[in-house]
Amino acid sequence: MRNLIIDSNRLWQSLMTMSKIGATEKGGVRRLTLTDLDRQSRDLFAEWASACGCTMHVDAMGNMFVHRAGTNEALPPVITGSHLDSQPTGGKFDGAYGVLAGLEVLRTLNENKIETEAALEVVMWTNEEGCRFAPACMGSATFCGAFALEYSHGRSDQEGKTVLEELKRIGYLGEGCGDRPVGAYFEAHIEQGPILEAEGKTIGVVTGAQSQRWYEITLTGMEAHAGPTPMERRKDALISAAKLVQEVNQIGLDFQPGGCATVGVLDVFPASRNVIPGRAFLTVDLRHPSDAKLAKMDEILRNTAESIAKDAALTLDLDQIWACDATNFEKSCINAVRKGAKAAGFSHRDIISGAGHDAMYVARIAPAAMIFVPCEGGISHNEIENATQDDLAAGCQVLLNAMLEKAGTH
Amino acid sequence: MRNLIIDSNRLWQSLMTMSKIGATEKGGVRRLTLTDLDRQSRDLFAEWASACGCTMHVDAMGNMFVHRAGTNEALPPVITGSHLDSQPTGGKFDGAYGVLAGLEVLRTLNENKIETEAALEVVMWTNEEGCRFAPACMGSATFCGAFALEYSHGRSDQEGKTVLEELKRIGYLGEGCGDRPVGAYFEAHIEQGPILEAEGKTIGVVTGAQSQRWYEITLTGMEAHAGPTPMERRKDALISAAKLVQEVNQIGLDFQPGGCATVGVLDVFPASRNVIPGRAFLTVDLRHPSDAKLAKMDEILRNTAESIAKDAALTLDLDQIWACDATNFEKSCINAVRKGAKAAGFSHRDIISGAGHDAMYVARIAPAAMIFVPCEGGISHNEIENATQDDLAAGCQVLLNAMLEKAGTH
Repeated sequence: MRNLIIDSNRLWQSLMTMSKIGATEKGGVRRLTLTDLDRQSRDLFAEWASACGCTMHVDAMGNMFVHRAGTNEALPPVITGSHLDSQPTGGKFDGAYGVLAGLEVLRTLNENKIETEAALEVVMWTNEEGCRFAPACMGSATFCGAFALEYSHGRSDQEGKTVLEELKRIGYLGEGCGDRPVGAYFEAHIEQGPILEAEGKTIGVVTGAQSQRWYEITLTGMEAHAGPTPMERRKDALISAAKLVQEVNQIGLDFQPGGCATVGVLDVFPASRNVIPGRAFLTVDLRHPSDAKLAKMDEILRNTAESIAKDAALTLDLDQIWACDATNFEKSCINAVRKGAKAAGFSHRDIISGAGHDAMYVARIAPAAMIFVPCEGGISHNEIENATQDDLAAGCQVLLNAMLEKAGTH
Repeated sequence: MRNLIIDSNRLWQSLMTMSKIGATEKGGVRRLTLTDLDRQSRDLFAEWASACGCTMHVDAMGNMFVHRAGTNEALPPVITGSHLDSQPTGGKFDGAYGVLAGLEVLRTLNENKIETEAALEVVMWTNEEGCRFAPACMGSATFCGAFALEYSHGRSDQEGKTVLEELKRIGYLGEGCGDRPVGAYFEAHIEQGPILEAEGKTIGVVTGAQSQRWYEITLTGMEAHAGPTPMERRKDALISAAKLVQEVNQIGLDFQPGGCATVGVLDVFPASRNVIPGRAFLTVDLRHPSDAKLAKMDEILRNTAESIAKDAALTLDLDQIWACDATNFEKSCINAVRKGAKAAGFSHRDIISGAGHDAMYVARIAPAAMIFVPCEGGISHNEIENATQDDLAAGCQVLLNAMLEKAGTH
């Protein structure tokens, strides 16, 4: 087989075109899942897939599967993909890169008239970010059987609109979910961390992903007037929440290397400048590459929260709302990525994903692996998220190589 | 003069009727300034004033002055009053008590056909709470010349609506502001603190009010993905905000007796559970009976905030948005309150107000004092705020006695 090279400019142009949908002033995107902007990005993806001569299937979660037939359709397809939804103040590459890199693989094969034995598919998973509707990775988790379809359909946003209603409204409610075969799955993504950039490596061969748990915590004290209520008679929920924020940070620091602990949301009630806060709500995100270490972090979090609440005579309500065990990707898929990077001559290293990805759910039902490329300063979930055209092209080339190895060519 | 006694049941019924406007499920009220509910409470007050045979003047701040003529209209009137607006989750008595106690004084005099030498007035000040439109005590501060009318008219709420627009909309934009004479001013109010209840005293003879300063502080770091961003590379604005919350609390604890320090509002951005907060906004409320001590608290706050921001390499933006020096009420008014309490046989003690009140502004232009009554558990700015009918009646009786002493009777 001749040396097949993806088109770096075409990939870059596709990324730039897609990033206009929901573009923000600071150069990022705000494309929350199942909004009108999400619909526009889906429509554009569908248009591009159709121009590739592919068929498209939309399932009951709005997941979109672009199918390029193989010479042996009895074989399960080799699939790649990611997501097009974004954080409230997200970047241009998180998710969109994996979808459009997959499309570039199909375009390159078409251009070079290459047939594969197994079919190839590019999938766009619904609601990977989980910020409008929790939990995250909802489309892939439902496809892979981790969430029941009825559960995911019933999740609602802050205004009370459900996933099902919004899928219908934007016209992306299809049929069936999880009934499609997956021969192997690859996902290309920006690293969203600083390691590849710091070490000057182009490709991250992702061997697994961190164990994660999400919590919602409410501390309830007593609201009272900030002037005449003496310091020693207060039941200020924010003081305790502030202690907990620092203790959560300390848990992350104490579980190095690899541990992460973050409070992303903190709301106080009634939020009036001369009222002592009677209630505070916060979210906690704990991660570690080791399930055992994460369980220990969980234990410390629970004990610390209880002790802080007890000391201040506050009521504590702590819910673990989501968890995902550590993922170990499949050896032959990891090898296909590593071999693809070597063949293309790119520097590479094995890496553990700190972020959650759809690939973590797909890995439960099929052989899977991921490909990381560097992003500037390791910054992501931020409008200034950035990556170079060369690095993005390199990851796409490795994706092509790995998919061809798994699908087989003639 | 015969023994003139206010009607405890009539006062209580008026309070209960007024508390239906904006009533909340938990037994409090939500009657934000210049809303439709505020208009309803004004309409009811105007109706009751009219039934007393009084004239009503509304000024350009929407302050409402109910005038009961004296035998010598050349004398400046003796005025009492407070406010009808509430906190977002406020109580039934904060403010409304002072207005309706004033009305009860007029009703008692009418019923007993008593004429006063100086006229009596009951004033309803606009926007005492300052939670929809900052700063607080806006109506009285403008009347007393502390704020320019144009400044107050131009203040806007979170939706961008201005005080002037909302005054017009609810039909309470009158003419002139500050051009009415004030012979003396008394304000009856629940204590909003625990001292009277703890000491078993019925009447607080308020000799002055605390010095206060309000601040808005923004800490800016860098938002980033909570998973792949290692702990040591973070610029988490919330961690530093949490430290500052605890340091503010410590400032309050270090300035005992009398110091208060409160963070009432804390917002983080972008407020997504898997994004490290890039920005945190908080409000600080500092109070002390001594201006000099408050200046010291101010200095510590500024130094602490700077040092916390510097340690974490964050940007700090600290604005003092409002300040009010300590108030010393006028001796003859204080004496009239103390004498009124003695005459009625109520236990009493001198007390410093921890909360801000309209009386603090009026004291700048006229002799003034306040009368406090106990509230349950010292709790206020809370829907469960409570006070007994007897204590409220006692305060109203003292108000009647003090006003009559200042106005003179025939």
